[in-house]
Amino acid sequence: VAEEHPHRHRKLTDAAGRSGRIEPAPVPPRRDAELSNDVWGFKDTGFFINERGEVELSGGRYGLSRAPMPYLIGWVRDTFGCEVTPDKVKASQYPPRLPKPQVHPRFLEDMLELLGEDGVSVDGETRLRHGRGQTQEEIFSIRYGEITRMPDLVVYPNSEGDVERIVEAAIQHDVCLIPYGGGTNVTDALRCPVEEKRTIASVDLARLNHILWIDPVNLIARIEAGAIGRVLADQLAEHGFTMGHEPDSIDHSTLGGWIATYASGMKKNRYGNIEELVIDVSAVTPAGRIERRAIVPRESAGADPKRWMLGSEGSLGIITSAAVRIYPLPEETAYEAILFKMLEDGVAFMHALMRSGATPASVRLMDNGMFHFGQALRPVSAGIRKARGRLERWILTKVRGFDLDTLVGCTLVFEGTRAEVRAQQRAAYAIAQRHGGMRAGASSGERGYQLTFAIAYIRDFIMPYYILAESFETSVCWDRAVELRENVIRRVKAEHAARKLPGKPLIMARIQKPYHTGVAIYFYCGIYYQGVSDPVQVYMDIENAAREEILRCGGALSHHHGVGKIRRGYLPQVMSKATLEWTRRIKRAVDGQNIFGCGNQQVDDPGSDEA
Amino acid sequence: VAEEHPHRHRKLTDAAGRSGRIEPAPVPPRRDAELSNDVWGFKDTGFFINERGEVELSGGRYGLSRAPMPYLIGWVRDTFGCEVTPDKVKASQYPPRLPKPQVHPRFLEDMLELLGEDGVSVDGETRLRHGRGQTQEEIFSIRYGEITRMPDLVVYPNSEGDVERIVEAAIQHDVCLIPYGGGTNVTDALRCPVEEKRTIASVDLARLNHILWIDPVNLIARIEAGAIGRVLADQLAEHGFTMGHEPDSIDHSTLGGWIATYASGMKKNRYGNIEELVIDVSAVTPAGRIERRAIVPRESAGADPKRWMLGSEGSLGIITSAAVRIYPLPEETAYEAILFKMLEDGVAFMHALMRSGATPASVRLMDNGMFHFGQALRPVSAGIRKARGRLERWILTKVRGFDLDTLVGCTLVFEGTRAEVRAQQRAAYAIAQRHGGMRAGASSGERGYQLTFAIAYIRDFIMPYYILAESFETSVCWDRAVELRENVIRRVKAEHAARKLPGKPLIMARIQKPYHTGVAIYFYCGIYYQGVSDPVQVYMDIENAAREEILRCGGALSHHHGVGKIRRGYLPQVMSKATLEWTRRIKRAVDGQNIFGCGNQQVDDPGSDEA
Repeated sequence: VAEEHPHRHRKLTDAAGRSGRIEPAPVPPRRDAELSNDVWGFKDTGFFINERGEVELSGGRYGLSRAPMPYLIGWVRDTFGCEVTPDKVKASQYPPRLPKPQVHPRFLEDMLELLGEDGVSVDGETRLRHGRGQTQEEIFSIRYGEITRMPDLVVYPNSEGDVERIVEAAIQHDVCLIPYGGGTNVTDALRCPVEEKRTIASVDLARLNHILWIDPVNLIARIEAGAIGRVLADQLAEHGFTMGHEPDSIDHSTLGGWIATYASGMKKNRYGNIEELVIDVSAVTPAGRIERRAIVPRESAGADPKRWMLGSEGSLGIITSAAVRIYPLPEETAYEAILFKMLEDGVAFMHALMRSGATPASVRLMDNGMFHFGQALRPVSAGIRKARGRLERWILTKVRGFDLDTLVGCTLVFEGTRAEVRAQQRAAYAIAQRHGGMRAGASSGERGYQLTFAIAYIRDFIMPYYILAESFETSVCWDRAVELRENVIRRVKAEHAARKLPGKPLIMARIQKPYHTGVAIYFYCGIYYQGVSDPVQVYMDIENAAREEILRCGGALSHHHGVGKIRRGYLPQVMSKATLEWTRRIKRAVDGQNIFGCGNQQVDDPGSDEA
Repeated sequence: VAEEHPHRHRKLTDAAGRSGRIEPAPVPPRRDAELSNDVWGFKDTGFFINERGEVELSGGRYGLSRAPMPYLIGWVRDTFGCEVTPDKVKASQYPPRLPKPQVHPRFLEDMLELLGEDGVSVDGETRLRHGRGQTQEEIFSIRYGEITRMPDLVVYPNSEGDVERIVEAAIQHDVCLIPYGGGTNVTDALRCPVEEKRTIASVDLARLNHILWIDPVNLIARIEAGAIGRVLADQLAEHGFTMGHEPDSIDHSTLGGWIATYASGMKKNRYGNIEELVIDVSAVTPAGRIERRAIVPRESAGADPKRWMLGSEGSLGIITSAAVRIYPLPEETAYEAILFKMLEDGVAFMHALMRSGATPASVRLMDNGMFHFGQALRPVSAGIRKARGRLERWILTKVRGFDLDTLVGCTLVFEGTRAEVRAQQRAAYAIAQRHGGMRAGASSGERGYQLTFAIAYIRDFIMPYYILAESFETSVCWDRAVELRENVIRRVKAEHAARKLPGKPLIMARIQKPYHTGVAIYFYCGIYYQGVSDPVQVYMDIENAAREEILRCGGALSHHHGVGKIRRGYLPQVMSKATLEWTRRIKRAVDGQNIFGCGNQQVDDPGSDEA
């Protein structure tokens, strides 16, 4: 038969002729010495005011780096109605006084035997890092406040087998375990419950960071849960692939963290959110290792560990690895920015674009406030570029009739084959024109997209200037998006006024990630807190009021940040009593000892128990 | 502001200018009097041998109807190596002797009070219908065998409130409930456990069949769980929409059934499988009503009732309604058939097509056996059509070098806007050419697609001729698809030979539903059982051997049929011990009394219980 049919047993290959699994070389685990402990991100990266009084981003990691931003301080002053005086800052009191570790001696003994001295830490700074995420109150308390509870020790498993041993030891000695990925959550998910009397061990997945294999024909990669977004993206790219998952936190967050928080990436239109990217999950739970035996495209077999672990926020076990969908690197990536006269035009544009069947990988609509914030991050421009900027502004406002106080800007990322990118561009430009859009160029689009990765550093830069700022997000059906944003802005302003706080509040939004049924909305909110007592609580009260408003307008409790501890009180507003009761019963059924006692969501709430 | 900006508060609309919810008029519930009880489908539809000795499909429901098929009997004879003699059939002994109902008197009282006499049935035929699905052994036992256990009564709730009352009464009186949708499962999912001593009530959702609303802007419909596929598709189409979900069973199966069995439709490439189509699920469980408060595009809030109910197979509660994604009706639908010289070419074509980004709504590759079966279903052709058929066959084999014993046929359905259909066609034809494909025309393609809905009637038509046939399915990664199919065919032939059964076995496959990571494979298997004792068991043994082979080759336990009772024994082969232990613990935690005691999967297995 083989002779008659030369193709008889030919192998399927990818476009590069590859078949069979590729096993990338291991990469070194995360080095905490490179990371800040009292602010977001890398130690070598941060905003500072240079000798000319302009803001600058240190390091060379981002597009924004080393390009002085002369407009930013003015924007802060105007927005918050406050002073920004480098010699009148609220000095950090880092490091804070740390509570002493209370380590269960036999658990410690077991851990030292299993992992060696190198795999166990009771160091204060390390414990502090593992007991916090990135909410403003966590960062504030690290710099200015008090730490009442942290993990008592941190353990670093080298393998899934180690994770199993750790869980077994925790059960034996009744120790509480909290899994640790990249520490980038903004939900107090890693904050240790103060009432927890048992030893708390943080289980850091840093050493489970390997891409175990890449399958070019079936486009699957099996990756350990501790792999960091940026690192695994670089590794996949070396072999010509991408997961396409780009959350704002990609420099630090991990695959396991993405699964546990139900993450969403900026290019989800093309590649999918984490629930679409993940094919299979393995996890170690108090009831044993949950996993399927084979990776299959789709299976109707009742149980699916993936469904349990997605959004589990550390409450059910430790995710150890996942099989994920990968894609060949796109042939082409193109950027664009489009201005619209007002928000409604931009939303109508996104709605129509989503119905066109040719949606770009990323579509993000900055409201007027966000647009001006983006302008404030411009670097200095001089000579021809400056003159050109003035000319463009004149054309925009005088000739085209755009009003600088109402216009909005949309950034687009097109990705795919050349033909796909062309089709997406054609659709986007035609639809934009119908909604009065004006193209502002690829460089504005790219800049808008890349800003995202650096923006997280700004919050911590302005905190010493008595400014507390934070983001929160939701998703909502198309027809309520404009109304929800407006109501939240009105509500924040009213709450700010009612409290007679100094200056003005910051409240601006980005409408992004279009879905078939609606959009995600990302808010930035901030207050000037000079002279305000308990500013963290005041900020939280305002954000909570905004959250109430979001729920009242039909929005989701969270689009992708999750619940953790800061939103657990709202769960009864978004799901029925019995739904919450199910989560508690399931938790008790699979972790009756509450080994995974991080206290996120309401799974550990004694609650009502009757059927 | 409104005057300056005329669009200020303009509403988003769909392309037809609509906004706001549409509430379709209710439709009457399913009428069992129209349906057969001892075979698949509608009473007015069935294959029979006409006075000229040709097979014909009665009724006017399908493309195949009323067009005599002169080649089918020859195909049956050749395939099974048997006789097809209308006067030597195995006569049906329907109706079988039925066990007497044992109805809990107070539960019956409560039901009569709640639902009236019209809403409760203890009629034998009705109970029989509600205690079976569509496996060959169920149909065989109804026609030739014994019924040992059936539901003791059938109840018909009119509302979600009724469903809650029914569950409450079941808890109070310790009655077992089995939800009923369309009765089309092929997993023994509705078969009553013989060991169940309690009263078994079948809860028929027939009256919960309304499309509650259609939202044209957000493209969502809220539909009650008992709505039948074909009926809800017609209703949505009246308003210009489609769910796009087309399982083979669409004429009878229901939305709730799709969710409970984790269903997949033939056009899933464009519209998604049920898990992608369903946005939100409401269900009544022994722990109360599980539901979310608002419909949002995406929410990271830990719990999601949808994830629990998808694939739950009746074990956890009764699905009452769901919010689903809908789409505007496609501008265009086009069909095509493409022939390839051999299976490997067709699979390579599908793989490349899936990587092109322009995959048609449906792509199904018939292996050589399936191709000839399709040919056997051709109606008589005469005159020019017959001559043309001969000419085409000559060109195919002599000029183009196709071998009738190895060629395979692929049917394609293109759907979308005119531009999308053109792009899909361009991609498909270009890729087909690279793999030696030859276009066989739109009518062959359409015929191949439409055959699906009528094919289910064939099994029951040939059963009296001493033939047992059944389908089973799997999914597998791209690189193992060809090997898996080959091994299963070899195994079935070997098992048939080893048993010295009369005639030859039927074993043929369709490779379909391409995924990013692989494909689904649908097998048809059959035996001639004249003179064979316990043919049902013999057939099952052969299918089980095929199943072992599938699992050995890395295939899924089931792609979309599910587990039910016929595949529960294989669960330990596809998931870890702890995974099964989780499912049992979750079941006990939310339904400790085992009210939903249908016995599907292994959720009720006492199994091992230690952590």
